[in-house]
Amino acid sequence: MTRKMELALQHARKAVGISEPNPRVGCVLEDAAGRILGEGHTQEAGGPHAEIAALQDAARRGNPVAGATAYVTLEPCSHHGRTGPCCDALVAAGIARVVASAQDPNPLVAGQGFARLRAAGVAVEVGPGAEATRELNIGFFSRMVRGTPWVRMKVAASLDGQTALADGQSQWITAEAARADGHAWRARAGAILTGIGTVLEDDPRLDVRLAPVGRQPPLVVVDSRLQTPADAALFAVPGRPVWIYAAAREPEAQQRLEARGATVTHLPGAGGKVDLAALLKDLGGRGVNELHVESGFKLNGSLLREGLVDEFLVYLAPRLLGAGRGMVNIGPLAGLDDAVPLEFTDVQRVGVDLRVVARIPGRDRF
Amino acid sequence: MTRKMELALQHARKAVGISEPNPRVGCVLEDAAGRILGEGHTQEAGGPHAEIAALQDAARRGNPVAGATAYVTLEPCSHHGRTGPCCDALVAAGIARVVASAQDPNPLVAGQGFARLRAAGVAVEVGPGAEATRELNIGFFSRMVRGTPWVRMKVAASLDGQTALADGQSQWITAEAARADGHAWRARAGAILTGIGTVLEDDPRLDVRLAPVGRQPPLVVVDSRLQTPADAALFAVPGRPVWIYAAAREPEAQQRLEARGATVTHLPGAGGKVDLAALLKDLGGRGVNELHVESGFKLNGSLLREGLVDEFLVYLAPRLLGAGRGMVNIGPLAGLDDAVPLEFTDVQRVGVDLRVVARIPGRDRF
Repeated sequence: MTRKMELALQHARKAVGISEPNPRVGCVLEDAAGRILGEGHTQEAGGPHAEIAALQDAARRGNPVAGATAYVTLEPCSHHGRTGPCCDALVAAGIARVVASAQDPNPLVAGQGFARLRAAGVAVEVGPGAEATRELNIGFFSRMVRGTPWVRMKVAASLDGQTALADGQSQWITAEAARADGHAWRARAGAILTGIGTVLEDDPRLDVRLAPVGRQPPLVVVDSRLQTPADAALFAVPGRPVWIYAAAREPEAQQRLEARGATVTHLPGAGGKVDLAALLKDLGGRGVNELHVESGFKLNGSLLREGLVDEFLVYLAPRLLGAGRGMVNIGPLAGLDDAVPLEFTDVQRVGVDLRVVARIPGRDRF
Repeated sequence: MTRKMELALQHARKAVGISEPNPRVGCVLEDAAGRILGEGHTQEAGGPHAEIAALQDAARRGNPVAGATAYVTLEPCSHHGRTGPCCDALVAAGIARVVASAQDPNPLVAGQGFARLRAAGVAVEVGPGAEATRELNIGFFSRMVRGTPWVRMKVAASLDGQTALADGQSQWITAEAARADGHAWRARAGAILTGIGTVLEDDPRLDVRLAPVGRQPPLVVVDSRLQTPADAALFAVPGRPVWIYAAAREPEAQQRLEARGATVTHLPGAGGKVDLAALLKDLGGRGVNELHVESGFKLNGSLLREGLVDEFLVYLAPRLLGAGRGMVNIGPLAGLDDAVPLEFTDVQRVGVDLRVVARIPGRDRF
């Protein structure tokens, strides 16, 4: 990967928590002598995409861009969304060459951007930084290809895997630094999901408080029988959308929750439970790229058993709890080969705690 | 710390798995121009200590050592053990200056070595590398000061803290590289301890096979009622001492086990169980510096509840098992403040698995 593409990727990373539901893209404009003319990243939805941000930056800096090369971490868009097609803007600005990391998985683009650029006489090169851009946008790729978000399950546990005492006490197992880090992962998500068990037991807000954030991600509550109390703390986050998914029809409860600003959706599944697979499709339809799950033992187990989890974000605290509640309600297994296989993709110490990112092998092959 | 003391420490590390029950010590002899004249480390018990090994090395290399400085990672001994006092050998060789990392915690030495050197006109400096030498010899320091070994509990578990399925299946939760690493930790121990539950369930050998080793560490079995089968696999390790600790008198069983070469010791404690605290004292008396515990849920819990564990060596495998057996049989706790506190001292990836070394805070203050 060239240094300019790495710089474009750095810009792309700045779009985390900002560009949703759009992908995190960065762009660097370079002249023939290798001088940087302009740079930028995707802004909030409806705002400029990375290419436009870079062109605007060049204009602000008084740099003419005719004949320049654009390094961009994703294929420039060819369609009219809330903004005009970036391809046309690049062509209009006289950009001579585009180097892009990857083709846009968005079926509305999917190579048409490159075709349009080439048709206008722009040289196009695709590939450098492809893996990094895909990893950075794994949720966007997931939604575009699978129609559902990338599902990341967050768990905070003791070193011996207990997420709570037997009586439910869990605040706090991990220390401040790990909790702040957890909030940063909430901040980058397209939505946060929890279950009614957690709502009733812990009455959490599930917003982003301990990390910088542009907007509070919508909160999704799996609440089959609409038991969320109208005075739950989760309603105390101004402007944050609350999406409640139910199985049973409970008109009174629904009215009460809608009066609190919640959107209630019915997706009845087997056994009086919410159809979780349908829920993920619905969230995909709502533009959720990364879904951050912070729930309890039971809902964690259901999501996992139904094959809906892609990745775990596990914080391990330096303590032992012994008997308590585990991470996921699965098993007993018949044999060790029936275990849920994982792959550790990142291990970091966060304050006194340990953070382990683990992926279910093959889940990122889409 | 000077470069020469770091070199002496490197030599000291070579004594791991060799010098037991003696400490791991390294020595470097340097002339006035900073040239290395000789170097060495403690050999097997009864063999030369580090200072003697270094003097012998210098002689082999034809280097006169009169007027030299000796960098040694622990106070030279002043007493006649199986070998003569190193102090006298250094003085006799005409060593002008000794730089030592730490005073020997052995009450038979404890500063007398330094006093003896000074009395003979040798300049003595103490301190550089003190912490490293203490860490390297934490078991020796523990035995000298507390009279008991440093107790390191090894656990192999899934990321969700399960060490076995509910039916006991546990072979293998971790992969080959982690198992080999575990054998290297066995190899450095003064003894390996397990419980009768593990013997009856898994019939393990508990020897060192997957790592290089000078001698097989003795195996300690906590077996209150002398249930170890005479044909247990643990007897199949040639020359490896087996020390069985019992609570009940079972003359027949005892005779059968002694016929297999085991040493049976009675240390009855409360409730018909072996007195574990007394067991550790007994192992201290037998010269065990580091005790490597590889046992099950129950004995792990008993050792922990009785405050006898110093450190955990935890391998976490990238898989989830859900319902199964935990690491330690403790709890249910009344509150999170009752958790066993730990401190992560080392975190490494070992093959596909994760290795976490965690210490109970304060246990190393002796």
